[in-house]
Amino acid sequence: MKDKNYFLAKAQENMPELHCRNIIPDATEFVASDGDSILLDLGQHAVGHFSFTFDRVDVFVDAPVRLIIKFGEDMREINDDFSEYKGVLSKTWLQEELINLDYPQKITLPRRYACKYIKITIDRTTRPIRLFDFSFCASTSADVSVLKPINSNDALLNKIDIVATNTLKECIQTVFEDGPKRDRRLWIGDLRLEALTNYYTFNNLEIVRRCLYLFAAGECNELGFLPSFVYETPYYHSGEAHIEDYALLFVVSVCDYYEHTNDISVVNDLLDICKSQLDCFKSTLDDDSIVTKQNGWFAFIDWCPGLEVMTSLQGVYLYALERFAGLLKAIGDDDCENYTSLLPKVRLASKNHLYNENRNVFINSRDNNQFSVHSQVWMILGGVIDGEEAKKLLLNCLDNKKAMQPCTPYMHHYVVEAMLKLGMKDEAVQYLKKLWGGMVELGADTFWEAYVPDDLDFSPYNDRMINSLCHAWSCTPSYFIRKYEL
Amino acid sequence: MKDKNYFLAKAQENMPELHCRNIIPDATEFVASDGDSILLDLGQHAVGHFSFTFDRVDVFVDAPVRLIIKFGEDMREINDDFSEYKGVLSKTWLQEELINLDYPQKITLPRRYACKYIKITIDRTTRPIRLFDFSFCASTSADVSVLKPINSNDALLNKIDIVATNTLKECIQTVFEDGPKRDRRLWIGDLRLEALTNYYTFNNLEIVRRCLYLFAAGECNELGFLPSFVYETPYYHSGEAHIEDYALLFVVSVCDYYEHTNDISVVNDLLDICKSQLDCFKSTLDDDSIVTKQNGWFAFIDWCPGLEVMTSLQGVYLYALERFAGLLKAIGDDDCENYTSLLPKVRLASKNHLYNENRNVFINSRDNNQFSVHSQVWMILGGVIDGEEAKKLLLNCLDNKKAMQPCTPYMHHYVVEAMLKLGMKDEAVQYLKKLWGGMVELGADTFWEAYVPDDLDFSPYNDRMINSLCHAWSCTPSYFIRKYEL
Repeated sequence: MKDKNYFLAKAQENMPELHCRNIIPDATEFVASDGDSILLDLGQHAVGHFSFTFDRVDVFVDAPVRLIIKFGEDMREINDDFSEYKGVLSKTWLQEELINLDYPQKITLPRRYACKYIKITIDRTTRPIRLFDFSFCASTSADVSVLKPINSNDALLNKIDIVATNTLKECIQTVFEDGPKRDRRLWIGDLRLEALTNYYTFNNLEIVRRCLYLFAAGECNELGFLPSFVYETPYYHSGEAHIEDYALLFVVSVCDYYEHTNDISVVNDLLDICKSQLDCFKSTLDDDSIVTKQNGWFAFIDWCPGLEVMTSLQGVYLYALERFAGLLKAIGDDDCENYTSLLPKVRLASKNHLYNENRNVFINSRDNNQFSVHSQVWMILGGVIDGEEAKKLLLNCLDNKKAMQPCTPYMHHYVVEAMLKLGMKDEAVQYLKKLWGGMVELGADTFWEAYVPDDLDFSPYNDRMINSLCHAWSCTPSYFIRKYEL
Repeated sequence: MKDKNYFLAKAQENMPELHCRNIIPDATEFVASDGDSILLDLGQHAVGHFSFTFDRVDVFVDAPVRLIIKFGEDMREINDDFSEYKGVLSKTWLQEELINLDYPQKITLPRRYACKYIKITIDRTTRPIRLFDFSFCASTSADVSVLKPINSNDALLNKIDIVATNTLKECIQTVFEDGPKRDRRLWIGDLRLEALTNYYTFNNLEIVRRCLYLFAAGECNELGFLPSFVYETPYYHSGEAHIEDYALLFVVSVCDYYEHTNDISVVNDLLDICKSQLDCFKSTLDDDSIVTKQNGWFAFIDWCPGLEVMTSLQGVYLYALERFAGLLKAIGDDDCENYTSLLPKVRLASKNHLYNENRNVFINSRDNNQFSVHSQVWMILGGVIDGEEAKKLLLNCLDNKKAMQPCTPYMHHYVVEAMLKLGMKDEAVQYLKKLWGGMVELGADTFWEAYVPDDLDFSPYNDRMINSLCHAWSCTPSYFIRKYEL
């Protein structure tokens, strides 16, 4: 029977092996007294466990030694004063420890960190001490030996690809994590983009299957939607949030997997769940075939403050519906026509009710005149609009200061996906180089959770300190560059 | 060959077994949100490791939880604001941890604590959490099953005995620690008093031998004196301090051991070291047979601010000399007469040069008119003065506000020892009940490192917060009560 236990057993079968390697930072020894500090540079972003040895210099330390150890994904984070943090997410994600060591010893801190830099400050010692044997045991389940460089003639694209694959590598642990510094959970939206990029880079299929099954085992909410994230530690548990666009993107992720692998067994396991996600969503359409808000609904789309998301959500539905109809056709499923037949009707309704003829733009919802890049992108990806009309609409909107613009690489991904769907290869490259290239030029070793070129302090959480600087949803340039040979 | 390795091997052979038992505090569960705190009462002083389990209440905690965990030997310590600590010893002895827990788990803190109370404060959690399964794994190498109650008719003496044996029990770990909260090291001065009390209570002879051998393995300073303390963790190491009275009390400790056990093998192992301690000390006497200050000398005697200690030190020398001469006589050693013959000469010199006839008191040194209880006590214990004259001198001095008074139970011990030597049993009981009884009446479960009845904030380290409230050198009432049937 395909119940929770079945799916969890499948997830367990597909547990990837973590590869660990020790990174030795630039400094090998630190002789220190009260108040001294040292900055260790790992030379690369890493996810794992930090070890070091502490011993006396000459006279034995006659009291415990207190150290403050701070981990930073970049130097801004190292220099931030965490006591001034004012963001909405828990300050406990800021990576800093206060530890007391009773006597000379080798120590491995019990928690996992994501960092490039480590700053150790001697808060209190009664005698000079020596810290040495610094080592960072970095983990990933990505097999870097299978990764081939792209060798593009464009130096910036080469760099972007390196940073993007590095970002993915860091997020591939025992699940596709959203970000190894913060959350560290499996979210559907991240899973979809990580899996896509993974197919063209490390091609770790075990972890894709594991993640799909972990969601299949999840507890649906009363509307029937999958949880939008799950915890694997310390025991499996569904997240409490149910994000509507993410539920639809689970369906897309299954379609992506089949397209890449032709593995019918996984599709057979997950087919009923995919159908239920689309069916539940369909039941929320009104008589005009336009999606309506339900009690307790939350759609994500992007971290754009104040963004109205109904039109985008309608687009995500159409996008998932079209992909799923294609899958059912490919595998010869009897229900194929039930889904395929919905497409023209809902597309037409979307154009009729969500397109504002006067302003020549899709508005963000029926009840609202707000408009944004997001709505145009999802109407394009949902097949509501196409060809030259769509190209013009998208470019105008990207160039229009009145249109709300994407805030995260997650949404930037779908802008590029829409461009490539419309055959706008040059614009896609230009967009990639502007957005992800912008981060590269600012010294990124991994791509960030949020990037607004004009506002480097932008944070979805009201404080930049908490932003994740290695975020799964930002890894997709490698997918585009490699799949479309940009 | 009796070298360092021989002595360390002997110390290892005599490693006592630690007995552990779980103490469950009064509270079994704590459901808490941001800022909440709980006080756990173990119902007794304990030395060991603290464990608990943390889990969600309903919704999973979606960020690490930060806890502040404070350990107090009494409630004053729990209520102290450690950030205001201004003492001379390292603040890192104040028992408080800041820990971040990534997800629900059972945790055992890696460090050992000495406490009766544990306060847990939720510094930050995003959701209510549940803490439970509180457990404190307490250790001692004292075998409490061999301890017999004294059944005195005097209720206060009964209480004093219970608290004293409890103090010793807590300090008997793998060595005789001075205090399990702070220092946690083997000091000769504490060893001597712990071993004495141990003979009449738990009678753990292994640990006495272990401690004697650990000092025998120590590195002597250039004057030839043993280190006054040693570290056993993480590897054996001599302390840097060489306290002259402690070096002499090592000799006394060996004498005590033989007197109690008649174990000649240990005495044979340590005889040369004992001789060398007395011989080195003898070489520091001037032509008048009065001890003179050497470069780098430090004598302890008591934590009495500004106390001049030369006369006391002269007394400690005589005390050790007499005991050692007795030991050599008992075992028939050829050198016996060399030591015995010194006694009358040095005693006479002490009386001639250190007793102030006008003031009828031993002054604290030849160069100084300061006087104190300490000097009288050590001249009595050194056999310089005896009988009614000595009794009167001691009582007058204890009653004289101009005389510097003892500050620690360590020195109070030698006051009582002097009284009992003089046959002042009633006064000794009165003194015990006043000093140690005073702590009992203030609610002590274990006896304190420092106790000045008129100044409960007295600290040898300029801040009461750092005082140890379970201190080995305060355990000797049980020795007196049991040996002398008080």
